[in-house]
Amino acid sequence: MTNKKTPNKAQIERLLARRKQHESQLNPELITEKILRGDKTALSDAITLIENKIEAKRTIGQTILSNCLPHSGKSIRIGITGVPGVGKSSFIEAFGTHLTEQGCKVAVLAIDPSSEISKGSILGDKTRMIELSANPNAFIRPTATSGSLGGVAHKTRETILLCEAAGFDTILVETVGVGQSETEVHSMTDFFLLLMLAGAGDELQGIKRGIMEMADTILITKADGKNVKPANLARTEYKNALHLFPAKENNWIPKVETVSAMENRGLDKIWKIIKTYDQMTHSNGWKDSNRKAQQEYWMKESIQSQILEEFYQTKGIQDKIKEITNDLNVGKLTSYQAAELIIKYYKKQK
Amino acid sequence: MTNKKTPNKAQIERLLARRKQHESQLNPELITEKILRGDKTALSDAITLIENKIEAKRTIGQTILSNCLPHSGKSIRIGITGVPGVGKSSFIEAFGTHLTEQGCKVAVLAIDPSSEISKGSILGDKTRMIELSANPNAFIRPTATSGSLGGVAHKTRETILLCEAAGFDTILVETVGVGQSETEVHSMTDFFLLLMLAGAGDELQGIKRGIMEMADTILITKADGKNVKPANLARTEYKNALHLFPAKENNWIPKVETVSAMENRGLDKIWKIIKTYDQMTHSNGWKDSNRKAQQEYWMKESIQSQILEEFYQTKGIQDKIKEITNDLNVGKLTSYQAAELIIKYYKKQK
Repeated sequence: MTNKKTPNKAQIERLLARRKQHESQLNPELITEKILRGDKTALSDAITLIENKIEAKRTIGQTILSNCLPHSGKSIRIGITGVPGVGKSSFIEAFGTHLTEQGCKVAVLAIDPSSEISKGSILGDKTRMIELSANPNAFIRPTATSGSLGGVAHKTRETILLCEAAGFDTILVETVGVGQSETEVHSMTDFFLLLMLAGAGDELQGIKRGIMEMADTILITKADGKNVKPANLARTEYKNALHLFPAKENNWIPKVETVSAMENRGLDKIWKIIKTYDQMTHSNGWKDSNRKAQQEYWMKESIQSQILEEFYQTKGIQDKIKEITNDLNVGKLTSYQAAELIIKYYKKQK
Repeated sequence: MTNKKTPNKAQIERLLARRKQHESQLNPELITEKILRGDKTALSDAITLIENKIEAKRTIGQTILSNCLPHSGKSIRIGITGVPGVGKSSFIEAFGTHLTEQGCKVAVLAIDPSSEISKGSILGDKTRMIELSANPNAFIRPTATSGSLGGVAHKTRETILLCEAAGFDTILVETVGVGQSETEVHSMTDFFLLLMLAGAGDELQGIKRGIMEMADTILITKADGKNVKPANLARTEYKNALHLFPAKENNWIPKVETVSAMENRGLDKIWKIIKTYDQMTHSNGWKDSNRKAQQEYWMKESIQSQILEEFYQTKGIQDKIKEITNDLNVGKLTSYQAAELIIKYYKKQK
C-alpha cells in the first residue's frame, strides 16, 4: 500500500473540516459573533490575532476589535499592584472566585513586560490560579511578553475591550511594578488597588515612589493568624498617612483595609468599596470623563511613540547620541547644546 | 544755534563710550570674564541674552554659557515648593539671609510659567525680598515668563550654570507648583524641599499628588505664636506618614521640621539637614550620578520636544486630531486606530 493513492471520501471530509476550522479562526465576522455570545475560545483567538507578529493577522484582529467596540465599555476596570511576595495571585484567586459567586463575570489580565527576562513570574502565577481558571465565569489571560512596555500596554488595553464585548463586567489588570508599568495600568483602569504587607520595612522598598498616591485603596494582605494584629496596626498607620495626602480629583478618599485570601476574609468589604466608588464616580460623571481622558492619553502616547521611533531608528543616530552624551557627561556641552547637535545630525540624515 | 553743527570732542567721546558699553554687553569673552569674577551685572546680562527672543543674541548667550561651563557645577541646588500662602517668599528671604551669614553665596531663581497669566505671583514676591535683594552675596532673578514650561525650565537650568560660574554656591529654585513645574524643578535640583502649613485641610488641596513623595524634607512653616503647637503636631503626623513611604534610591530618609521665618527659628536646623544630605550623596556618588542622569534627561526632553513640535506644526494636523479625537470619544475608534489615522495623514502631508 502507498500513501500516494487518491484520497477517499472520508479523508477529503476531514481535510475540508480542518480547512473550515482554520478559516473560521480567521473570519472576523464569525469570531465577533462568537465573542458577543461569550465564547471564551473565540475571545482567546481574537487576542492572539491582536498580539500576532504577522501584519495580516493583526489586521483581522483590528477588524474584530472594531466590530466589538460598540459592545465594550460596560465594566469596572480594576488595577492591582504590589511587590512580589505580597500575595497578589492568592488574592486574585480568592477575590475573583468571590466575585463570580456574586454573579460577576471576571477577566484577569496582566501587564508584565519583564516576564520574558524573569522567566515569567506572572505567567507562572496564572497557572497557580487553579480554581479561578476552571471557573466558567472567569477568563484568565497571561500577558503578551514581547515588545516594549508601550506595546504590551496597548495590547492589554485592546484585550480589555474584547473581554468587555464578551460580557466580562469586572476586569482585573495585574502588574508586578516593573519600570513604568503601574503608571500604565493606572491609566487604563477605573480603580487602583495597592496590596501591601504588614510590617513596614524592607518589603516596601520594592514599591516605587509615587505609587502610594495613586492608590484608591490600600489592602494589607495576609491578615490571618499571627499576622492579624500587625495588619490592623498597619491599617491604622496607612489610614493616618493617607489622610495627609491631597484629596483626589474625583473627591474619593482612599481607603485602607485588611484581607486574608487564605481565610477568605475581607473580600466582601473590598468589593463593597469598589462598588461604592464605581457608583460615585459614575453618578458624578468622573468615570466617563476619566475614560475619555485615558483614551486621548493613549492615542497621544501611540502617536508620539511612533514618531520618536522613527527618529531613534535613523541611520547612525544611536552612535551620534552616544558620542554627544559623552561630551555632555564630561561637561563639554549643556543639555540643550547636546540636543541641538543631535537634531542637526538627524535633519542631515533625513 | 542749531543741533546740526559738527559734534565737539566731548560729544564724540560720550558717543564712543556709549558704543563701547553697548559692545561690551554683547562681547561674550568680556562678559564671561566678568561673570567669573562674580560680577552680578554681567551675570544678569548673560541671562538676558540666553532668554532673548532674537536668535543672534541667544547665540552670544550660548557662547558665554559654553565658556562658563567648565566653571559651573560646584553648588548645592535646592528646589523649593509649596502652595501660595505657605510663606515661600518669607522663608526664602529669611533662609537666604541666614545662608549669606554662614558665608554662602546665594542665588534665588524661580520657575513659574503661570506668572504671565496670573500677573506674576513670584515676580511680585521677589520685590518683597527687600533684605535679600540688597545683600551683596545674594542674587535674585525673576523667572522668564514667556514660552512653554519646557522652554522656561530649560532657561532656568542654564541660569543655574551661569550663577555657579559666577561663584554662587547655593542655588534656590522656587516653584509655585503649576502644571508639571514641581517635577521639572525636582529634575534640576539636588535636594527638594516641600513647605507645608500646619492643619491638614483645604490648604493641602493645592499640592498635587506625587509631590509629597518627591520631598527630601517637609518643612512646616509659620511655626510661631499660636501656631507652634499645631505645627509640632503636624510634624509628628508627617514623620509617621513619611516612614511608611518607600526608601529613596539614594538611601536618604526624608525629614520633617518646623520653621518660623518671622522669628528666624529652624533655619540652622534645615541648613544642617541639607549639608548632611549633600555630604552623604556626595560621598556615596549619588549626587554626581544623579546630575548626569538629569543632564541626559534634559537632553532627551529637548530632542523629543523639538521633534514632536515639528509634528504638531504640520499643516492641518490640529484639525485632523480634533476630528479623529471626536470619533475616538464617540466610540468609533480605539486609541490605536485613531493614532494610526493621524500618523497616516501626517505622512501624506510631509
